Amino acid sequence: MDTREQHDRGLALRTELFGRDAVEKRAAAFGDFGKPLQHVINAYAYGDVWQRSALPLATKSIAMVAMMAAAGHGNELRVHLKGALKNGCSMDEIQEVLLLLALYCGIPAANEAHRVAVEVFREEKLM
Amino acid sequence: MDTREQHDRGLALRTELFGRDAVEKRAAAFGDFGKPLQHVINAYAYGDVWQRSALPLATKSIAMVAMMAAAGHGNELRVHLKGALKNGCSMDEIQEVLLLLALYCGIPAANEAHRVAVEVFREEKLM
Amino acid sequence: MDTREQHDRGLALRTELFGRDAVEKRAAAFGDFGKPLQHVINAYAYGDVWQRSALPLATKSIAMVAMMAAAGHGNELRVHLKGALKNGCSMDEIQEVLLLLALYCGIPAANEAHRVAVEVFREEKLM
Amino acid sequence: MDTREQHDRGLALRTELFGRDAVEKRAAAFGDFGKPLQHVINAYAYGDVWQRSALPLATKSIAMVAMMAAAGHGNELRVHLKGALKNGCSMDEIQEVLLLLALYCGIPAANEAHRVAVEVFREEKLM
Amino acid sequence: MDTREQHDRGLALRTELFGRDAVEKRAAAFGDFGKPLQHVINAYAYGDVWQRSALPLATKSIAMVAMMAAAGHGNELRVHLKGALKNGCSMDEIQEVLLLLALYCGIPAANEAHRVAVEVFREEKLM
Amino acid sequence: MDTREQHDRGLALRTELFGRDAVEKRAAAFGDFGKPLQHVINAYAYGDVWQRSALPLATKSIAMVAMMAAAGHGNELRVHLKGALKNGCSMDEIQEVLLLLALYCGIPAANEAHRVAVEVFREEKLM
Repeated sequence: MDTREQHDRGLALRTELFGRDAVEKRAAAFGDFGKPLQHVINAYAYGDVWQRSALPLATKSIAMVAMMAAAGHGNELRVHLKGALKNGCSMDEIQEVLLLLALYCGIPAANEAHRVAVEVFREEKLM
Repeated sequence: MDTREQHDRGLALRTELFGRDAVEKRAAAFGDFGKPLQHVINAYAYGDVWQRSALPLATKSIAMVAMMAAAGHGNELRVHLKGALKNGCSMDEIQEVLLLLALYCGIPAANEAHRVAVEVFREEKLM
Repeated sequence: MDTREQHDRGLALRTELFGRDAVEKRAAAFGDFGKPLQHVINAYAYGDVWQRSALPLATKSIAMVAMMAAAGHGNELRVHLKGALKNGCSMDEIQEVLLLLALYCGIPAANEAHRVAVEVFREEKLM
Repeated sequence: MDTREQHDRGLALRTELFGRDAVEKRAAAFGDFGKPLQHVINAYAYGDVWQRSALPLATKSIAMVAMMAAAGHGNELRVHLKGALKNGCSMDEIQEVLLLLALYCGIPAANEAHRVAVEVFREEKLM
Repeated sequence: MDTREQHDRGLALRTELFGRDAVEKRAAAFGDFGKPLQHVINAYAYGDVWQRSALPLATKSIAMVAMMAAAGHGNELRVHLKGALKNGCSMDEIQEVLLLLALYCGIPAANEAHRVAVEVFREEKLM
Repeated sequence: MDTREQHDRGLALRTELFGRDAVEKRAAAFGDFGKPLQHVINAYAYGDVWQRSALPLATKSIAMVAMMAAAGHGNELRVHLKGALKNGCSMDEIQEVLLLLALYCGIPAANEAHRVAVEVFREEKLM
């Protein structure tokens, strides 16, 4: 497949998952300097890895939330929590991941992840 | 609930997930010095957090694999990869998590996680 | 021991260490969504591990400051710096931990920890 | 060499790399509490390790940017991005390091580093 | 560009940097399970990011050594130390990166990186 | 103070804490390549930071054990566990730090630290 085509199907999936506004805002944030990174995100992450079909999108979102919370990437956790809600994950399911996090990565990591999750839930009018 | 009861139901679930041999071997490895940590694992992790029912065990395993691989905990990743197989996750599903890892935590983290996964799959005669 | 009892003695110790206001503010911050995490903190951290008596509270605080600064958990470092002062640790003792940090976890980690410490000391009118 | 002399040549190099204002602001930020850490920075980092001559300053800056971005130290990354520009590194060279970061430490680390870099470039009127 | 072409030019560069034996050994290590990860490495890392020309290969190697040592990825550090030597970096230049690491990521990280570097230098008959 | 003098008093303290054999073995392990790092360790860590007197050596050891376990530096944890025993810390005190670790950095970090501790205790004939 041509990488341009791979980029475009990636951007399409990413837009579907997170909404056009969010994706365009992130693409614009770093201007021309950020273009090669946007290519990595669109063509390689969403145009390849996210296209795989062994796991449903909701389960991929669970994996992403677990991964980003464990790695301490709060900003990216926020993005994938929104994606998780979009993909049909419930607050109870997300809570369960964050409690596993408390036991396996420690209370401070879980506190940070809860803080981000509560912000997202409030923005989405879920609490 | 009494914490002893919570410990016992946790140990029962843990034994079901990983097998009696593995659990007893780990409990014995650190002798008396490790007893309070075993209590944390049995009563608080498996007796409380793992008892929650919002996520099926297979999805919890996906979250654990994602979390342990992201945090670089190879030994614990091995344990939870075995649990994932026990809970019905396929190699293709695990592969998909480890490819998300490559993009979101980097190639070296994915290399390490692949190395552990391949060892587990060979022990389980899956490759 | 019943886990409710363990929770209550944990909450009592936590309140003694950090003050009622701080504890209630944190408990309320995440609403119902945060209740299971508060249970982990109160019953398992403060109701079990912090109840052990081999180390005086001041030395536990030194360990917590070292651990949170090494792990880069700034918010939790702030909490445990306040606890350290409450438990009788001096600024000189804290400084010594943060200098060990500079050599063993690097200058950037020490810079971040100093920043948090100076904020805490100013809030407590110590500088 | 006397450590005072080592401190002074370190402070001189640090001032040359980052400008007097930035260095004095950081030295003042933590008051007396921060003096021993400033000694570590001036005498041991800039007075010893940075004095070595096997690598040109621009290449040391590339190494520092790579290291701080990989370790997730955003504040220190900012400092060393300014140093990199001062030492003659171009935006294209910095971009290349941050793209290696995307592949080897993951997209979220690269996103964070891009965010800091774009702030620095805007402050320096480069974009 | 077609991703197959991008993969092939990546594999060619990777083979040039690390030698055919090393690359084939790594590709074979994970069997079919590892093929998608090999695609990420060949097509996206070496076929795209490593193809960029703003930094000479020796400087990219310095950045990679800094990044892998800071992230604590010993196995990948070993690979990129070999690449650094192949790209013309001297032991003195590598030493300078590892001393910056000692000050900015701490002595234990530098000890681990020295251990890996000394193993590589001995394999390459440099010490 | 002359840095040579600072180095020598550092080496003296380090030898007292860990024994001549251990220190010489580590100094020799990296040959000439490791000499500048040994200078950092002897002159800056043990010749400066460890010379400070606000904390007793046993409490510094507690801080070091907490820090190294939290940062996942197993080899350095081993060194400082031996130092902790030498400085009069008991197994019960060390256990308490490792249980705080379980709650605040997670079960896998505590498992790894227990494994190292049990090895050290067996080498020292304490279990």
